[in-house]
Amino acid sequence: MAGIKEESSNKMFGGWQKVFSHDSSSLKCSMKFGIYLPPKADSEKVPVIYWLSGLTCTEQNFVTKAGAQNFAAKHNVILVAPDTSPRGVNIEGEDDSYDFGSGAGFYLNATTEKWKTNYNMYTYITEELPKVVSENFPVIPGKQSIMGHSMGGHGAISIALKNPGKYSSVSAFAPICNPIECPWGQKAFTGYLGEDRETWKAYDSTVLVKSYNGPPLEILIDQGKADNFYTAGQLLPDNFVAACAEAKVPVILRIQEGYDHSYFFIASFMEDHIAHHAKVLNA
Amino acid sequence: MAGIKEESSNKMFGGWQKVFSHDSSSLKCSMKFGIYLPPKADSEKVPVIYWLSGLTCTEQNFVTKAGAQNFAAKHNVILVAPDTSPRGVNIEGEDDSYDFGSGAGFYLNATTEKWKTNYNMYTYITEELPKVVSENFPVIPGKQSIMGHSMGGHGAISIALKNPGKYSSVSAFAPICNPIECPWGQKAFTGYLGEDRETWKAYDSTVLVKSYNGPPLEILIDQGKADNFYTAGQLLPDNFVAACAEAKVPVILRIQEGYDHSYFFIASFMEDHIAHHAKVLNA
Repeated sequence: MAGIKEESSNKMFGGWQKVFSHDSSSLKCSMKFGIYLPPKADSEKVPVIYWLSGLTCTEQNFVTKAGAQNFAAKHNVILVAPDTSPRGVNIEGEDDSYDFGSGAGFYLNATTEKWKTNYNMYTYITEELPKVVSENFPVIPGKQSIMGHSMGGHGAISIALKNPGKYSSVSAFAPICNPIECPWGQKAFTGYLGEDRETWKAYDSTVLVKSYNGPPLEILIDQGKADNFYTAGQLLPDNFVAACAEAKVPVILRIQEGYDHSYFFIASFMEDHIAHHAKVLNA
Repeated sequence: MAGIKEESSNKMFGGWQKVFSHDSSSLKCSMKFGIYLPPKADSEKVPVIYWLSGLTCTEQNFVTKAGAQNFAAKHNVILVAPDTSPRGVNIEGEDDSYDFGSGAGFYLNATTEKWKTNYNMYTYITEELPKVVSENFPVIPGKQSIMGHSMGGHGAISIALKNPGKYSSVSAFAPICNPIECPWGQKAFTGYLGEDRETWKAYDSTVLVKSYNGPPLEILIDQGKADNFYTAGQLLPDNFVAACAEAKVPVILRIQEGYDHSYFFIASFMEDHIAHHAKVLNA
């Protein structure tokens, strides 16, 4: 293994759930990521799906609670679940809030003086981590998709839209769809990008989709109707769907009666999401 | 809800994953249990499967990591996952060890002076909890099965053998099969039951199966071959299988290559276990 260290390894559904650590050049700190290798990866190269977690999460939440490995084994895909921010980089106040700093990297490259040295999750997810994965694991070059939850749903959709053709498919659970218009996004973008709201648009899916000009991308979104953050206006999927309609980008938004924002909700629809990606990746 | 308090409620796979607390008369403290109600339980009575967890666990481990709800929803069964010991009963030393006291009730009724007031998990699991469940949830009377992991696998098998006809089926993941012959069991039984080893036999599955004289009971056991506690002689499934052969009690022991003692192992074979119980319960 080049430049990565195995932290744990557990057989699961005939394959292996592992966690690795490595020194990240884009984040200037040690980072962990979870990776599930399906049985087929013992002998052949397979596609990879990246999972981006939400606020407060580490790589462990998806690994232990999402129930995704079962379906990754069946559909012959690798799952990669990184951490959600740089860790332990000693920036004053980095651990003060659940929705800013540690555990809240927002999948962007910071430009403010205080954060720009370390908070470059956009580069980490789109360039550094795929390079680490392709150098160390049996992935088919170019066969990758992306999905995520909440802040990670924002990350997945915005990253897919900013990189036409790089990801074969995209999906999200309760994504922050229009961060420049919600309290979570406004707080994070002010801190990481500064006061000039024009610069925020580069990371807002509802803005980005209007100028999307890449290959067809069918976006699947599940949103719990009983999700407190949905009713509080943090997620704003309707804004995104309206923008998709305007841009003629296909989106499937499923409002799921009774479901909340938790991993119980995520697990309930994970099979559908893995199938959504596998259909394209294994075509 | 009679005498129970809802602590959490999350929609999952069309049903509900809930946690309740209640004052236990057999344990003389407040106890929590997880319960998954499948969609069918909205309108009809269904069977119930009890899950007994292993050392150090609370009700949360099974609820968040086992991935069982998906299959309970498909097979129309309720899942009940209690805590593994009394909590906060202020017995000197109760929190000193991971394998004795809190989180390590061993599913027996203690007889030693120090522990006998509270450490009555056998009565709690076989009498009090089923009464609480049947009074508050739509269960079909008499349609119940039991399964568990490690210490909870010992609990499931010994409880099924001690109560012929009470449980329709039984299964276990990496159970402590012969506690009187392993370090975990010897430590726990000495503490809870005293020095007289004759009294220990009342809770040892390998002893109990030799005198089992009830309705047919097909016992399913999965054991990871790479499980450190298996290789260290804490689990001793071979002793149990030999005793079953002698007693002509059918047992299926599957040694699973590469799997360890974790919930990654449990999740991998949960579908088989739920199906094993549902086949009998829904017959």
